[in-house]
Amino acid sequence: MRIAELSNRSGIPVPTIKYYLREGLLPPGELSSPNQASYGEEHVRRLRLVRALLEIGRLPIAAIKDLLAELDTPDPNLHHAMGRALRGAVPGSSGTGTGTVAGEEVDALIARRGWTISPDAPARRAIADIIAAMRRLGWDDMVTSIDGYADVADRAAELDMEIVARHSDPDEIVYGAVVGTILGDALIAGLRRLAQESASAKAYERVNRA
Amino acid sequence: MRIAELSNRSGIPVPTIKYYLREGLLPPGELSSPNQASYGEEHVRRLRLVRALLEIGRLPIAAIKDLLAELDTPDPNLHHAMGRALRGAVPGSSGTGTGTVAGEEVDALIARRGWTISPDAPARRAIADIIAAMRRLGWDDMVTSIDGYADVADRAAELDMEIVARHSDPDEIVYGAVVGTILGDALIAGLRRLAQESASAKAYERVNRA
Repeated sequence: MRIAELSNRSGIPVPTIKYYLREGLLPPGELSSPNQASYGEEHVRRLRLVRALLEIGRLPIAAIKDLLAELDTPDPNLHHAMGRALRGAVPGSSGTGTGTVAGEEVDALIARRGWTISPDAPARRAIADIIAAMRRLGWDDMVTSIDGYADVADRAAELDMEIVARHSDPDEIVYGAVVGTILGDALIAGLRRLAQESASAKAYERVNRA
Repeated sequence: MRIAELSNRSGIPVPTIKYYLREGLLPPGELSSPNQASYGEEHVRRLRLVRALLEIGRLPIAAIKDLLAELDTPDPNLHHAMGRALRGAVPGSSGTGTGTVAGEEVDALIARRGWTISPDAPARRAIADIIAAMRRLGWDDMVTSIDGYADVADRAAELDMEIVARHSDPDEIVYGAVVGTILGDALIAGLRRLAQESASAKAYERVNRA
C-alpha cells in the first residue's frame, strides 16, 4: 500500500509517519519507483506498536528506537533477548547523580529477596535513583515499606510469567514481553489509581460517619 | 537567594529554571529590585519535585502544571484533594478513540472488585485505552488475567494507605500522595523488572539443566 493508505489504516498522519521513517522507528517501504514506496501489514503493526509505546508507555523516542532494534534482532536465548529488549525502557533511569547509599540498599533488597539479577541490570540504578529522589523530596515512607512493594512486584512477575508460558513462538514471546511489560506498567498504575480511590473513599466515608 | 544560588542548590541550570518560571511550574521569586528576584527554600523544594515528576514520573509539562496548581489549593476534603491532584497524572490517558467495549469491561471489573469509583475517574478511560491498545497489538493476555493484576493493585493501594495513615498534616498527606503515587508507579515498575528478570533467569536455567 502507499503511504496515504498506511496513514488511513493506522490513523496516523502522513507527516508523522515520515518523521518515524526518518527517525528509524519504522523500516523503509519497498521502492516501487524512485519516488514511491510501498508498505505492508508489518508497517501497520509496527506503527501501532510505536504509537502505544509513545502514548501509553511514554517512552522517549531513543528508547523506542533501541527497543525496536532489539525486537528485530533474533536471539536464540530468550532470557537474554527479553532482557536486552527492555534494557532502555526502565522508568526513572535518567540518572542525575545517585547516592551510593541507595545503590547499596538495592543490593541488600535483592539479597533479601533471593533474586537472581545481573550486576548491570538497568533497573538496579533506576530504583536507586527513585529511592534517592524520594529521600530528597522528604517522602521516604515507601522506601521503608519497600519489601511490601517487592512482594507486589513478585506477584505481578508471576502473572507475567504465566502469560509468557502460554506462548511458544520465541519472536512472539519477546514481542509480548515488550508489550506486556511497557503497557503492563501503565495498566498496573491505572488499576492502582482505582484501588487507591476506592480505599480512600472507604476511609473517608468511615470518618464522615464517625 | 538569587537565581544563581538556586541553580547551585538544586543542580538545575539557570535557563531551565527560567523556563520553569515562564511555564508556571515554579512560583515567581520576591522582587528585591525591578530586575532582581529573591528565592527561598520552598523554591528549592519545588524544583526538586518538578525534576522528579519530569525525569522519574515522565509526566508532560501540562500535567505537572495542573498537579502543582492542585497542590497549592488547600482543600478541607482530603479524599477530593488527593483525587484532584492526581487527576491529570494517569498514564495512557492520551486517548485516541477508545472502543466502548473496553469501557464496559472496566465497568464490569470495578463491579466485580466492589470498588467505589467516581463515574468520571480518569483511570477508567486510561485503562479502557490500554485494553483497546493491547487488543490492537494482538497481545491481550494481560486483559484475560486482569483480575490477577487488580489483586496486585489492591495490595499496592493497601500499602499506600498504610503509609498515608502514618501522617496527620493534610498538606503533607496530599504532597505525599502525589510523590508516592507518581514516583511509586516507577518504583513498582522497576521492582517488577527485577522480579521478572529473576523469574526469567530461573525458568531459563531450569531449561538449560534439563
